[in-house]
Amino acid sequence: MAAGLGTRMGELSSETPKGLIKVVGREILYRTMKILENQGIDEFVVITNPLYKEKFEEFLKKNNFRYRLVINNFPEKGNGYSLYLARPYISEKFVLVMSDHIYEEAFIRKALKGKGLVVDKEGKFTNMEEATKVKIENGRVAEIGKTLKEYDALDTGFFVLEAGIFEVIKKLIQEKDSLELSEIVKEAQLEVSEVSGLFWMDIDTPEDIKKAKKFLIKNAVKGSGDGVVSRYLNRKISTKISEILVDYVEPIHMTLLSFAVGIVAAFAAFFSPFVGGLLYQLNSILDGVDGEIARAAMKTSKFGGYFDSILDRYVDFFVLLALALHLNPDVWGWAVISLALFGSAMVSYSTERYKGEYFVDIYKAVPQMRYLFGKRDERALITMILCLIGKIEWIFIILAVVTHVRVLVTVHLVRKSRNS
Amino acid sequence: MAAGLGTRMGELSSETPKGLIKVVGREILYRTMKILENQGIDEFVVITNPLYKEKFEEFLKKNNFRYRLVINNFPEKGNGYSLYLARPYISEKFVLVMSDHIYEEAFIRKALKGKGLVVDKEGKFTNMEEATKVKIENGRVAEIGKTLKEYDALDTGFFVLEAGIFEVIKKLIQEKDSLELSEIVKEAQLEVSEVSGLFWMDIDTPEDIKKAKKFLIKNAVKGSGDGVVSRYLNRKISTKISEILVDYVEPIHMTLLSFAVGIVAAFAAFFSPFVGGLLYQLNSILDGVDGEIARAAMKTSKFGGYFDSILDRYVDFFVLLALALHLNPDVWGWAVISLALFGSAMVSYSTERYKGEYFVDIYKAVPQMRYLFGKRDERALITMILCLIGKIEWIFIILAVVTHVRVLVTVHLVRKSRNS
Repeated sequence: MAAGLGTRMGELSSETPKGLIKVVGREILYRTMKILENQGIDEFVVITNPLYKEKFEEFLKKNNFRYRLVINNFPEKGNGYSLYLARPYISEKFVLVMSDHIYEEAFIRKALKGKGLVVDKEGKFTNMEEATKVKIENGRVAEIGKTLKEYDALDTGFFVLEAGIFEVIKKLIQEKDSLELSEIVKEAQLEVSEVSGLFWMDIDTPEDIKKAKKFLIKNAVKGSGDGVVSRYLNRKISTKISEILVDYVEPIHMTLLSFAVGIVAAFAAFFSPFVGGLLYQLNSILDGVDGEIARAAMKTSKFGGYFDSILDRYVDFFVLLALALHLNPDVWGWAVISLALFGSAMVSYSTERYKGEYFVDIYKAVPQMRYLFGKRDERALITMILCLIGKIEWIFIILAVVTHVRVLVTVHLVRKSRNS
Repeated sequence: MAAGLGTRMGELSSETPKGLIKVVGREILYRTMKILENQGIDEFVVITNPLYKEKFEEFLKKNNFRYRLVINNFPEKGNGYSLYLARPYISEKFVLVMSDHIYEEAFIRKALKGKGLVVDKEGKFTNMEEATKVKIENGRVAEIGKTLKEYDALDTGFFVLEAGIFEVIKKLIQEKDSLELSEIVKEAQLEVSEVSGLFWMDIDTPEDIKKAKKFLIKNAVKGSGDGVVSRYLNRKISTKISEILVDYVEPIHMTLLSFAVGIVAAFAAFFSPFVGGLLYQLNSILDGVDGEIARAAMKTSKFGGYFDSILDRYVDFFVLLALALHLNPDVWGWAVISLALFGSAMVSYSTERYKGEYFVDIYKAVPQMRYLFGKRDERALITMILCLIGKIEWIFIILAVVTHVRVLVTVHLVRKSRNS
């Protein structure tokens, strides 16, 4: 449903329909349609007004959606009338969803299992004043409206309907000049399904966009593989950076920027471990941004993940090698350094080789792995600290021990785990 | 079908029924049943004679097959009579297969798509004198027997039948005292399905076992990730070793033995690169044996593959580190050594990280990868050769270049490949 004339978005919507406003790098409608598509919905009927026709056409074509565009020449007749226009193209169970609502994937997946109007009893992310409230009786809508004093839940703008609803609409249309969706919902006494506590928002104002951005970036921090340093330090900073940059850069730019900072860190480390260590920690923080942006903006790619891992290994290696050259130790010093260099790579190897063999993330299959010390974020922080206090040799001694102990424990845990 | 009294196996079958003779570490019947089970066949009716009852019971229980054991108290009445005894337990389409025949997995997968008697027109692995020949007319069996002069194909002992066959058998049983399968096949004018050129054998003599072993070990060399050195040198030797050892050792023993040889190679390399290099090449050859034995004996495990990879990385590292310590170069020499040490690990990382991201083997998804120089077998051979001629420093110079070029090309090929 995208026939409304956005009136409160200020400049943003004077040219662009609300559904096509980009939130975190993607049109609101793109998010909803892509998630629905991934869940098996393969045809879309988009209802809009003549003013936005071309813009929607362009958007739908560009993204290869299978669609039918329906034009409501009388948007002032209400969104109930808009829905009525879709009637010729719908003969089965269908999903009705507002183009200016943003939903997290988990919401849509759960909502699709529901029936009738999907409501939220918590409204964790919702502006209560603007929300449409619902009073429920015997599992069906009894009252619906923005000004309801007593209510049980909020209307999420997401419906799972049967084609039979058009009979109700047809009857109402014959009685009235204009028709709102809420009138249909009430007349049909729609069943109610609850999906509470998950993220959904009606995007009305620029502030709403900011709020949505905050959530989507935070939600993009999939913590399963994060070490303590990431969780309590790096992510706090990287998500802020992501929030600022997400609308302007692509994930690959951040991958390359983070790599460049890492290489500069390595050069710097040879001359000044102090500066090198700081830059290495900056690289470790920036390392999270590409993934956050990619996930939040639904721009993840397999190659992106693959490429990022390879570059991380090289940054780790070059920084440590530069510190080693700076140290210029004797032959047994180099033996320890070699152990540290190799061990750093083996931590990643032993973790990621697991996925290639078992086809599941090691942190999901072997939860104890999460508490195992020695992940990249933790190694980088220790390296920085020891650089700052000038104990370079301890970086190698610690890494030479910690990394190989970690590999040993990893092998042990893998062997013990049920998947073997 | 396991009711026959093996008479030509000499000592082997005086105690053990033919189907329970171990060929390459597994009972003949285990192979067939396990492959069938993996293909979705979930219940087995095993027909044997009173002499072998306990042995089969033990075998079937130990391997957790869902089975029903049928005893033919009159094995002399022929295998047609044996089949008749299974009648009460079969009401649907079923597979009939001889317990003393060994089939490769590809054969069974293809045969299961067939109908009636599965025949082989090539008989690549079959002793023609002993084989049962089939004359085909209009896609059905016209004549069948060992002594047929004119024939079109060989009986593989594998049938895909309908329960209706028991009507034919019932009729024949009433007419005769003893009944052979071939009589049923002829009377029913069974349809014929062709599966030609794949491995199957009737195991009659100890020589047959040897022949089967040779094939199964050779077949276990899945070449997709093998470099040229493996293909043309290491595998020639490792398969011979596997043939000798497969009946006596478990894959994990060979993994550990190969690792031990690698560690000894590293120690030796420090004092004598000549000896170390030779032992390293021996490790590289032995490295293939665990996998060959595991696959040939249907004993593969995810942990086995995982563990083996980790140990290989450590052997590579320790051998190179020992050579580096032997060399005792200046600081820039150590920089090159570090590049070589890290590069060796990165070759594996960049290859195997791919599988964790794309869930498919890189050599299958990106076939050009097969021709890329720098795999473990190739690195080991070069290391040995340069050790033998005393050019240790060149090992590191070559590896420092080759490994990183390989990683670079790998990333480039991955990016270009359609999966990204």
